[in-house]
Amino acid sequence: MLTAMTTGHVFIAVSLDGYIARLDGAIDWLVESWPEVGHDYGYAEFIGNVDGLVMGRATFEKVLTFPTWLYEKPVVVLSQTLHASDVPPALEGRVRISAAEPAELMQELHRDGWRRAYIDGGKVIRSFMAQGLIEDLVITRLPILIGTGLPLFGGALDADIRLSHIETTTHTSGFVQSRYAVIR
Amino acid sequence: MLTAMTTGHVFIAVSLDGYIARLDGAIDWLVESWPEVGHDYGYAEFIGNVDGLVMGRATFEKVLTFPTWLYEKPVVVLSQTLHASDVPPALEGRVRISAAEPAELMQELHRDGWRRAYIDGGKVIRSFMAQGLIEDLVITRLPILIGTGLPLFGGALDADIRLSHIETTTHTSGFVQSRYAVIR
Repeated sequence: MLTAMTTGHVFIAVSLDGYIARLDGAIDWLVESWPEVGHDYGYAEFIGNVDGLVMGRATFEKVLTFPTWLYEKPVVVLSQTLHASDVPPALEGRVRISAAEPAELMQELHRDGWRRAYIDGGKVIRSFMAQGLIEDLVITRLPILIGTGLPLFGGALDADIRLSHIETTTHTSGFVQSRYAVIR
Repeated sequence: MLTAMTTGHVFIAVSLDGYIARLDGAIDWLVESWPEVGHDYGYAEFIGNVDGLVMGRATFEKVLTFPTWLYEKPVVVLSQTLHASDVPPALEGRVRISAAEPAELMQELHRDGWRRAYIDGGKVIRSFMAQGLIEDLVITRLPILIGTGLPLFGGALDADIRLSHIETTTHTSGFVQSRYAVIR
């Protein structure tokens, strides 16, 4: 019998060459390309429909450098190296560290009452995808090539993963946003 | 004074993870995903508007394995290793080998009367892009992740390359086709 699990959902921006950040994690190319002020590309609606976030250590350390904490919802940081004491006091009760395997975590989150989790960060997204834990993805593609960087996808898979294209919307910024559901 | 050059144009299909072929060059994932029989995704119109093709050795050797020669228009194969004698007799006069540098070739083709060239193959597209020789690209993205393969993009650039999004069309196959112009 299949154990009930939280479903994983992705909402991410990539360069036309498929990167989510430069090699050093910089997202200047993304932030500076945001010409439609006041337009959130559906982010508020997306985040309103998840019960919390799951991200890796690298993404966590990146968002910690931002001037304010971005998330009202609970965040789980997947890491084999961080400990509870690595969570800044101001974020206690809002962020927890977990060393669980992806499927194990999704069962645990389901027991905690999460129906939908926002899965973020390249490495975490790829491992959740490879293990069939992602239900759908919203990918916003920016019209820029940055050459090198941290990729969203890539890395050997046991088998091809087919997706169903749900919809694509284009924006005057040149951003092309596509929603896909993973086919099981 | 700038020497007049033929402009470069790209028309290519990629997986959602940005590959144009598997590591061994296989495009089974692309061919088998073509559910709209009789629908050419604008290829005939595109090819009707170029004066010829420029491709690399790898792409040339791949298309030579197809049951019939695909191109009615002249083809230039960029290679430092192939020679005129590597062109099969049946293709003499239709295919020529060139060891020219990209910009040099585009000036040469302009003198030959080519206004627009179809630039094909990952490596050749990347080098022409990096040298500012591509005017626009039509990228058809298939809803499949293949994990590893030959990438369309990637590799250090002297500077980011910004593009202008012209249009995106979606198809019932799940293919998302976007046209971009390179911003100079």
